[in-house]
Amino acid sequence: MPVKVGIVGYRGYSGAELVRILQRHTGVEPLLLEHRADNGPSSGLIRDDGPPVLPCDAEIVAKEGISLVFLATPPEASMELAPALLGVNCRVVDLSGAFRLRTPENYAAWYKATHTQPELLAEAAYGLPEFCRERIPGARLVSNPGCYPTAANLAIRPLIEANLVDRAAGIVCDAKSGVSGAGRKASLTTSFCEVTENFSAYSILKHRHVPEVLLTSGLEESEFSFTAQLIPVDRGILETIYFRTVGVKSAEELVGIYQRRYQNEPFVRLYHPGRVPDLHAVAHTNFCDIGVVFDPATDRAVVVSAIDNLVKGAAGQAVQNMNLMLGFAETEGLL
Amino acid sequence: MPVKVGIVGYRGYSGAELVRILQRHTGVEPLLLEHRADNGPSSGLIRDDGPPVLPCDAEIVAKEGISLVFLATPPEASMELAPALLGVNCRVVDLSGAFRLRTPENYAAWYKATHTQPELLAEAAYGLPEFCRERIPGARLVSNPGCYPTAANLAIRPLIEANLVDRAAGIVCDAKSGVSGAGRKASLTTSFCEVTENFSAYSILKHRHVPEVLLTSGLEESEFSFTAQLIPVDRGILETIYFRTVGVKSAEELVGIYQRRYQNEPFVRLYHPGRVPDLHAVAHTNFCDIGVVFDPATDRAVVVSAIDNLVKGAAGQAVQNMNLMLGFAETEGLL
Amino acid sequence: MPVKVGIVGYRGYSGAELVRILQRHTGVEPLLLEHRADNGPSSGLIRDDGPPVLPCDAEIVAKEGISLVFLATPPEASMELAPALLGVNCRVVDLSGAFRLRTPENYAAWYKATHTQPELLAEAAYGLPEFCRERIPGARLVSNPGCYPTAANLAIRPLIEANLVDRAAGIVCDAKSGVSGAGRKASLTTSFCEVTENFSAYSILKHRHVPEVLLTSGLEESEFSFTAQLIPVDRGILETIYFRTVGVKSAEELVGIYQRRYQNEPFVRLYHPGRVPDLHAVAHTNFCDIGVVFDPATDRAVVVSAIDNLVKGAAGQAVQNMNLMLGFAETEGLL
Amino acid sequence: MPVKVGIVGYRGYSGAELVRILQRHTGVEPLLLEHRADNGPSSGLIRDDGPPVLPCDAEIVAKEGISLVFLATPPEASMELAPALLGVNCRVVDLSGAFRLRTPENYAAWYKATHTQPELLAEAAYGLPEFCRERIPGARLVSNPGCYPTAANLAIRPLIEANLVDRAAGIVCDAKSGVSGAGRKASLTTSFCEVTENFSAYSILKHRHVPEVLLTSGLEESEFSFTAQLIPVDRGILETIYFRTVGVKSAEELVGIYQRRYQNEPFVRLYHPGRVPDLHAVAHTNFCDIGVVFDPATDRAVVVSAIDNLVKGAAGQAVQNMNLMLGFAETEGLL
Repeated sequence: MPVKVGIVGYRGYSGAELVRILQRHTGVEPLLLEHRADNGPSSGLIRDDGPPVLPCDAEIVAKEGISLVFLATPPEASMELAPALLGVNCRVVDLSGAFRLRTPENYAAWYKATHTQPELLAEAAYGLPEFCRERIPGARLVSNPGCYPTAANLAIRPLIEANLVDRAAGIVCDAKSGVSGAGRKASLTTSFCEVTENFSAYSILKHRHVPEVLLTSGLEESEFSFTAQLIPVDRGILETIYFRTVGVKSAEELVGIYQRRYQNEPFVRLYHPGRVPDLHAVAHTNFCDIGVVFDPATDRAVVVSAIDNLVKGAAGQAVQNMNLMLGFAETEGLL
Repeated sequence: MPVKVGIVGYRGYSGAELVRILQRHTGVEPLLLEHRADNGPSSGLIRDDGPPVLPCDAEIVAKEGISLVFLATPPEASMELAPALLGVNCRVVDLSGAFRLRTPENYAAWYKATHTQPELLAEAAYGLPEFCRERIPGARLVSNPGCYPTAANLAIRPLIEANLVDRAAGIVCDAKSGVSGAGRKASLTTSFCEVTENFSAYSILKHRHVPEVLLTSGLEESEFSFTAQLIPVDRGILETIYFRTVGVKSAEELVGIYQRRYQNEPFVRLYHPGRVPDLHAVAHTNFCDIGVVFDPATDRAVVVSAIDNLVKGAAGQAVQNMNLMLGFAETEGLL
Repeated sequence: MPVKVGIVGYRGYSGAELVRILQRHTGVEPLLLEHRADNGPSSGLIRDDGPPVLPCDAEIVAKEGISLVFLATPPEASMELAPALLGVNCRVVDLSGAFRLRTPENYAAWYKATHTQPELLAEAAYGLPEFCRERIPGARLVSNPGCYPTAANLAIRPLIEANLVDRAAGIVCDAKSGVSGAGRKASLTTSFCEVTENFSAYSILKHRHVPEVLLTSGLEESEFSFTAQLIPVDRGILETIYFRTVGVKSAEELVGIYQRRYQNEPFVRLYHPGRVPDLHAVAHTNFCDIGVVFDPATDRAVVVSAIDNLVKGAAGQAVQNMNLMLGFAETEGLL
Repeated sequence: MPVKVGIVGYRGYSGAELVRILQRHTGVEPLLLEHRADNGPSSGLIRDDGPPVLPCDAEIVAKEGISLVFLATPPEASMELAPALLGVNCRVVDLSGAFRLRTPENYAAWYKATHTQPELLAEAAYGLPEFCRERIPGARLVSNPGCYPTAANLAIRPLIEANLVDRAAGIVCDAKSGVSGAGRKASLTTSFCEVTENFSAYSILKHRHVPEVLLTSGLEESEFSFTAQLIPVDRGILETIYFRTVGVKSAEELVGIYQRRYQNEPFVRLYHPGRVPDLHAVAHTNFCDIGVVFDPATDRAVVVSAIDNLVKGAAGQAVQNMNLMLGFAETEGLL
């Protein structure tokens, strides 16, 4: 019998992607949980075969026997909903930034807001399975990583672990994201005419995803320069990462570091030295693709890391976490 | 000495296009008139060389000696501003739909709103110079045509005048527009992720631009089927027009009708029989390009009409009207 | 044990979509058949988990026990490969236009080329399951319909069968297609800078897909005006179809015609009267979505029909045909 | 009487932009010089008002009295045509990479080809007016800079001159370009379906524009990491430049360096500290826009530099050079 799981925020881009993935999953039955009063425009279809819709209410969640709820909501809504759901023994995967930064002080510094659930913040497991797989199966609350940090950490942390980076010279991460990363809402900034035939940088050096990279990679803020940029595509993140190496002789050696680190990881794919991924390689997949270019004469290295921001950067990774929490194969519904 | 002209709504797409065109015009000095309190984000440029900004106030307009004001505003704002400006002897070119339909009843039927200025509605000259050039020079208030009707009427009216269309079979006008036609505003419908990789029809058979086509072409509503459609481009309108001919022997004959009608028109360009324009042909120009495909064996004809919705469909045509009103060469600033 | 199926032309857009769908299919094992010498650029991935590649050779196909081959090739290649494959008792689903038009004369008239396999042309079953389901299971050679005719016939034929269309006034089908419909090849016409911010009509009244619509719908060429148009999107076809009705009282009545005709069809979806699909509704699905707008006062009707050109318009429908030929559930791999 | 100037390669994107600009220029009469036999498809327009077309032949150029020719051609064609034109006392602005690198050895190293005109290579003046204005007026042959180096050098060289950069840590230049930078040609790489919804890096660390940056800025190759990337837009280059400062206290100080350096430059625009340009700010203009973000606590700086690759990155800068060579105002035709 399938396990019942709920989705709050199913009309957003990440939420809709969750619905698509969970409908392919053989072990769960998705239910849509309506949080906001306004229930939006219908599809117009006479026979609309989507999952059933219920009010997002802890009592109803309990009565329906929903085991796990995905929160594809803004941080404020997640801080409100998570304790209520946990209170009826429903586990939670939160896709917002509410539970990613460990301390209320760090949250306040980067999100410019007070954290209302400091105990849950301390308790939450960070859901980047490639580096935090141990805590996820037993967690009540898993905090799904940000899209930018997912692509950054999978590319950077193995290099830091292997002690190959000239940290004094710093790491530059020039990140580009499709517009769906900004969420589904009316906004002049993300309107078609403002975005098409354009390319723009924002939150230079100060993006709220930066501290997630620092926490996972072990870098200091002074060692990590990050720029987020909006590209005129619907989905996809590509990060071009620059650094200088210490004691590296060849591109093969750098690729080898990744190969060893990720040999058992189903969702990280590597490229031959000198080859790098583009967005098409990862669109609509849960893969993070990584490629390396290296100039041994000058120790300059460039790593390109690409994901689909709505899949490995949001809904796909959330289902990967759910699979670990509920005991399914980690790849179920995701290949 | 240049003539002073004002622009209300200069932050919108049509308004910004007006500013660009008027800055190239050798006979006028443009001034920006701030109508709404919120004055929006600045460009960030240290030295911003745009025209000066004044409050949009009839007294100030009079004191500054502004001869003519363009209203690139919604119909409600135009109905409010036009009488005040005319009251201080300032002439007006209105780019909204407020003054296009001649009677309050027709306006109410298509705009679903009450017209508050019926006398001005009766007085306004319709600013499609190719067909209404006589009344424009002396008019106090010129109503700039809608973008869809401009492309439609320039293609259809010569055929109706020449009595070549099988009106009983009807004319189909399948119209496609870039997103800037919807104006500059926050809206989910025109957000990048909703529009990119999409194509959608709206206001099928009931678009508020339909009555403008009927008034200018002389067609009955039952003879004219019109669909507006949104394409993922910034600017441009292309209309594919289908009809059956009566007594036409060749495509050359059809093209000849247009050639004779438009031989002295600087802004209508014609194509060799069998060739048709695309959007690139007219982008950033004030041209309306028209091409004809005809099958003499079955009397089926297809006419393609293309304009830039922000130029010939809005700001360019408004300047063309201004040129006629102020006695400049009709093409000044527009070639 | 899975049935082995081969794909020729797997690097093209339709071929790559076939591979994606067949990898999800639980009953078949896909194999890639290399037809051209040049084997193209590799992905760069160190571990590339695609299906195995074999030379496209009838003997090898026989030896490997491949039951069915998809030809995602140009008509000339299909005319060459089909007889060789049928000769070793391998069944064929051809995605090209080679076997769609029944007679060599009709083929010559629309494709401007000689048909080299007139017997196979006569034998081939037309693979539009919603109208030709009977002949497909037993066919050796199934000709997969064109993308435009699929969307057109599913919208038009029920109306013609029900005798509701004023055929004397004619039907207009204004069709728009994403660029992938032109195939994967170097071409200035489909290069990014020529297509972006553009919209262009081609093959007006004379597109080679027209005779497929006539054959399936029963319309005469004089009754059907068709324009194909290129939109700046990757995938999707939307057709806006105009006609006048005879004896119809309401939009509900028109929608009801479709509901009865398609009540058991898994891949046709209908909209409430007055609502119509857009491309996003069908992207990456095998659905054909149909919506109706009707003005009972003037008998004018507009039907919008939308498909994904690479799925229901090519690879998805080809798998639907394969499912019928090999005895799988018709929807296997396609929901 | 206007000066006659010729354009070779007028069908390419840079060439067509040259034609547009020169038609607005009050002091020259443009003529199109047909270099290749195939003269391409016509526009279809019955009355095509473009400049006259002549064969590209030195004798004809001399006879017509053409004073200056723009070569919007590949390097091989430029190396062939430049000596012939100079031989008839016609001056040349070359938009290719043929004459940018000063020595045949450097050319061979980066262009992987033999330079056939080493004397002209030594003679050519590098046409970046903001830094090389002195030599341009008297030059017979001006080599128009590459698009990427124009944006890079205008942003980097003032910082190097002012000795503010920690060169040991290196400068990273993450560059993004619209597709028109690849030229107008049939190519799978630049076809719509490969580019749309994609983002891809190429020539990482090894782009042939790198040596131009080194020559102008004075940086060593080991100090400069450059990646070129293709974005799904028609036109525009945006470069995000990362470095660490030495002895800088504020963003204002960094912006001040640029303000002093460029106070008399008509085509460089600066932003308030913390603000940066996007592509829309410079589209269809000859401006290079520069903005600075700085973190004084960690000495990390990010500079964003944006141009229109077809204007300041090609045709506009070529006309700017022509204006200097022929004694026109530097901004004529360009504002």
